[in-house]
Amino acid sequence: MLDEARALDAADPLALARQRFRLPDGVIYLDGNSLGALPVMTPGALSRTAEREWGNDLITSWNKHGWIDAPARIAAKLAPLVGAKPNELLVADSTSVCLFKLLAAALAARPGRATILTERRNFPTDLYVAQGLADLLPGTQINTVDRADLGTAIVDDTAVLYLTHTDYCSGERHDMRALNEVAHENGALTIWDLSHSAGAFAVELNGSGCDLAVGCGYKYLNGGPGAPAFLFVAEHLQDDLRSPITGWMGHAEPFAFAGDYRPAPGISRFLTGTPSILALAALEAGVGTFDGILMSDIEAKSAAMTQLFIDEIEARCPEVTLVSPRDPAQRGSQVSFSHPDGYAVMQALIARGVIGDFRAPNIIRFGFAPLYNRFEDAWQAADALAEILSTREWDQPRFHARQKVT
Amino acid sequence: MLDEARALDAADPLALARQRFRLPDGVIYLDGNSLGALPVMTPGALSRTAEREWGNDLITSWNKHGWIDAPARIAAKLAPLVGAKPNELLVADSTSVCLFKLLAAALAARPGRATILTERRNFPTDLYVAQGLADLLPGTQINTVDRADLGTAIVDDTAVLYLTHTDYCSGERHDMRALNEVAHENGALTIWDLSHSAGAFAVELNGSGCDLAVGCGYKYLNGGPGAPAFLFVAEHLQDDLRSPITGWMGHAEPFAFAGDYRPAPGISRFLTGTPSILALAALEAGVGTFDGILMSDIEAKSAAMTQLFIDEIEARCPEVTLVSPRDPAQRGSQVSFSHPDGYAVMQALIARGVIGDFRAPNIIRFGFAPLYNRFEDAWQAADALAEILSTREWDQPRFHARQKVT
Repeated sequence: MLDEARALDAADPLALARQRFRLPDGVIYLDGNSLGALPVMTPGALSRTAEREWGNDLITSWNKHGWIDAPARIAAKLAPLVGAKPNELLVADSTSVCLFKLLAAALAARPGRATILTERRNFPTDLYVAQGLADLLPGTQINTVDRADLGTAIVDDTAVLYLTHTDYCSGERHDMRALNEVAHENGALTIWDLSHSAGAFAVELNGSGCDLAVGCGYKYLNGGPGAPAFLFVAEHLQDDLRSPITGWMGHAEPFAFAGDYRPAPGISRFLTGTPSILALAALEAGVGTFDGILMSDIEAKSAAMTQLFIDEIEARCPEVTLVSPRDPAQRGSQVSFSHPDGYAVMQALIARGVIGDFRAPNIIRFGFAPLYNRFEDAWQAADALAEILSTREWDQPRFHARQKVT
Repeated sequence: MLDEARALDAADPLALARQRFRLPDGVIYLDGNSLGALPVMTPGALSRTAEREWGNDLITSWNKHGWIDAPARIAAKLAPLVGAKPNELLVADSTSVCLFKLLAAALAARPGRATILTERRNFPTDLYVAQGLADLLPGTQINTVDRADLGTAIVDDTAVLYLTHTDYCSGERHDMRALNEVAHENGALTIWDLSHSAGAFAVELNGSGCDLAVGCGYKYLNGGPGAPAFLFVAEHLQDDLRSPITGWMGHAEPFAFAGDYRPAPGISRFLTGTPSILALAALEAGVGTFDGILMSDIEAKSAAMTQLFIDEIEARCPEVTLVSPRDPAQRGSQVSFSHPDGYAVMQALIARGVIGDFRAPNIIRFGFAPLYNRFEDAWQAADALAEILSTREWDQPRFHARQKVT
């Protein structure tokens, strides 16, 4: 019921956070799990960084405007969102490059063990990174199993359990704590990809005993398209792990121009090359949209908003089948349904200004960003879907034509 | 003579290009080899990308605004600057990550050969990347020799000759053509770091028979602090080489979400993760400062401007010693001198608004960007240095105090 949704918005402790974003009129944006919305502060941050800092102060900005400290400074702001200590996080590179670094570091830290254990439905780029590393390092095995078999597949040869926390397609969350425990009992390390978790709900990296993690800056963190990623290395592991991609930023004395690499103490050793300061400025503004926000409020709103959406659709749309977990504690801040013509259905929704996305073969996917999505958005999107399905509005040639990026 | 310098500026076919940059008043900026100046078009490009594209069109911008094609589109604009074909270049990651990718790919393409050959004075991060890779791949050797010994050090076990084209400290250029020939005669591949070459003078990647190369976006290309890097793979090698860091952007079908990695045909296989579109927008504006410019004009101006600077300083400053090659054809677009108190001398210059930089132990370094530096700048900088040295203006406590980034 629309009235109920509006009442929930009126009582929402996060309602004011929507003003931190510049959202286009006439659009219900439910794709913040693919690309977060533009924060109001970002254009100014970019302009300040480009014109006042780079333009006026040129090379001296590295000191004068704290560019050199940006990867650690942003990481410190991000740490409370994912339950880490500030010195356990770092902003760097892309998600895929960060995964490569940590996976190689984890394998090297478990000599005598040759297997990366992962699941069949892990995010494709995560699988690709593992495959590329296994090609590079002779003897490395990848054991790819079904989700249900993960617990028993962790064995003596498992060097690292390598998983995405929240499934990009279904939104199902793994039990990080339980899997970390099994991994540790068997002497393996764990790497968690938090791309669909960080900023969507309360992640407890330390609380659940994680070893290593990587996350995405451009989804729920609103850092802008292709924003730098972040990586996490639990404090007690930092001195034992080494990045395989050793550049000047990770050197113990980056400005000594020494010929031999000596890794910096702590998390900084996982830096490689000079990061884009413009990209970092946008990411800092994105992380800033969480200023003063309680992750418990984010989590509660995510659960309630996705539930309202599911309830409304299941009541009115017999044509679709819920793919996401029914228990809010087991799903991320996204809801997926299957429909045989999912692609065309999503195109019809987009034509109405309801932006979600499609994932092959038949999934329509809706991301809910608790900072800027409203309960009313969830209701309106469900209402639009119900109309599109009941009238078969989606069954038009223009909605079947595929685009390059979907 | 100042009059002569001004006459050269009046006759300079590149003089109008200076208007493409926003340079602060009262500053002579001779550090474009560390961080290029802000192009006039960049703030608008950032604002358009953030507000009109990301803000208004959100996820649909990947198609609508060509974000997905940006790495190849910018590479195609860059290709003529370095003598490559458009399909041989790619914009991606940082310089260090690109070096890692190409070095690993080159080693894999030369099975049975274990040695990376490089020189002692190679840029430190290049050495670090090689050391990190050698730690990762058991059996890999790094042979680090003096520059003079490179030609004879290429032997049967050399997998790859790995050099920086223009020495960051002295500005001395290698003879790429000659070294490529020796390497190829001995069955080795070559990797050239063009960080201090690309945009500074005419680089002939194909003309000199280069196999692989990497370059920096934030020096002479004016792409902004920490801009993405570029990499080059000669067309005939592309199908035989594979990137070790395999992410979704380098997949043959990136939107199929397949579980198995299949490298894209051609140069695209060297992409990894999602690039920062904001950083790419700035880089595209930076590369755009070369629109309509002949690299032969760049090279001629660089040679003449650096020569004027050297002549003026050598005539007036017996306290310093030229470190760069005397022959303009052997030096990049930079000039370095040594002075026992080089650090303080450079700080005194900076205090007067002449911005160069210092490199340990005793080098003062001046970069000349032919697009925006004037012959008058060269004369004024030499004049300032002559005064600072003759009066010992540099010998004050405030000029001896070290900063974090120098």
